[in-house]
Amino acid sequence: MERAMGAEPITAALLVIGDEILSGRTKDKNIGHIAERLTEIGVDLREVRVVSDVEAHIVDALNALRARFTYVFTTGGIGPTHDDITADAVAKAFGVSIDVDPRARAMLLEYLAEKDLNAARLRMARIPAGADLIVNSVSKAPGFKIGNVYVMAGVPRIMHAMLEAVIPTLKTGAPMLSETVRANAREGDIAAPLAEIALRFPDVAIGSYPFMDDTGPNTNIVVRSRSRDRVNAARDAVAEMVGAQMVGAQ
Amino acid sequence: MERAMGAEPITAALLVIGDEILSGRTKDKNIGHIAERLTEIGVDLREVRVVSDVEAHIVDALNALRARFTYVFTTGGIGPTHDDITADAVAKAFGVSIDVDPRARAMLLEYLAEKDLNAARLRMARIPAGADLIVNSVSKAPGFKIGNVYVMAGVPRIMHAMLEAVIPTLKTGAPMLSETVRANAREGDIAAPLAEIALRFPDVAIGSYPFMDDTGPNTNIVVRSRSRDRVNAARDAVAEMVGAQMVGAQ
Repeated sequence: MERAMGAEPITAALLVIGDEILSGRTKDKNIGHIAERLTEIGVDLREVRVVSDVEAHIVDALNALRARFTYVFTTGGIGPTHDDITADAVAKAFGVSIDVDPRARAMLLEYLAEKDLNAARLRMARIPAGADLIVNSVSKAPGFKIGNVYVMAGVPRIMHAMLEAVIPTLKTGAPMLSETVRANAREGDIAAPLAEIALRFPDVAIGSYPFMDDTGPNTNIVVRSRSRDRVNAARDAVAEMVGAQMVGAQ
Repeated sequence: MERAMGAEPITAALLVIGDEILSGRTKDKNIGHIAERLTEIGVDLREVRVVSDVEAHIVDALNALRARFTYVFTTGGIGPTHDDITADAVAKAFGVSIDVDPRARAMLLEYLAEKDLNAARLRMARIPAGADLIVNSVSKAPGFKIGNVYVMAGVPRIMHAMLEAVIPTLKTGAPMLSETVRANAREGDIAAPLAEIALRFPDVAIGSYPFMDDTGPNTNIVVRSRSRDRVNAARDAVAEMVGAQMVGAQ
């Protein structure tokens, strides 16, 4: 990975394609995984969209996102059936042709006997002109990269494999570092001193996340920055504030 | 609920607001729940967006979505801390003022003693001018409705309560009905006859969802329509095709 230290942040968007997510039939598991992995390598996931299996919706969302972010990842809609329309939509968004790619066809034949490579399965070898393939170590049918767009499968296990194949090729930034302080207080009781700390650390993202456990309402404070010094300083300020609040409450 | 039978479909978008989802720290559980509930009552969830805690991003996404769909639901960013900026962003998107709402303040006092209603907690009573409140049966701090936008909490338990409070007030369509046929075949082996069925039933959404189980690769075919007759007819056609395929494979 090429680290773009100190340069502009490397940003990304994720486009999840599939009626089954919007109907609630399938619960998405890809957003969380991609968010975690991109954060780990220093790519900022800035937006996620979920759209249905309608070509115009995919094209519009893709064109909006690829103009605004360093990278766009898509999941879903690259299988062999009639409702798999992602590759065609991506070709349309880029204004390029799409046809069976001999490299992709060869990959399918690593997994399938020639007699099983019917017309439907050959759809999975249709790749927009000019795209590079993304290898699929699970079931061979590849994803592809065109421009700054990475088209991946929706099945989590296959998507994971494709993402790991892609990651070493990405420009990445300094990873976002984070520290969590458990406040042992309700959010509303620490909000004012926390806002003061946020003002003192304008370069650190400070988030407050309420949760419930056996002891009742509680709060995690998460501080995030690309600088280890700054994240530690903000963490210490939060921990000191939390300690002072607890003493004050006694 | 007012059923808009036979009329235009009732559509919705969901805007999930929160850095913690985009960083992968918190795994979203709200998309799947809202998708399921809206589908059950006949509202078509057409798009989901996840954006960060940045006012301009929230305003832009909200204005894009509220112009295109019957309803927009938002989750997240209505707590008492400095990073809770949803209410202000919504007021800005609608071009209205925002201030402490006496009705919302009274709701907070059902849960909190007057002495605990500090400035931070009072932020949770700041409501855009002209909005109606959404009751919160869990922890009282309300959500609100302005125009066609419903602003709800991000904590799943509270969001669920707010959504149930909202649902009886929505216009709803005929619910989408679905039937699932397990193909006992790999997707690529049934794709061609399935595409023929999809052509015969252009008014039925037919989706193909591969999965793995102990017996190896398998496929669920899901047929969806608002007409019970059509969904049953499409289901029967798929079941017949699947049966014929199994005989052919013997």
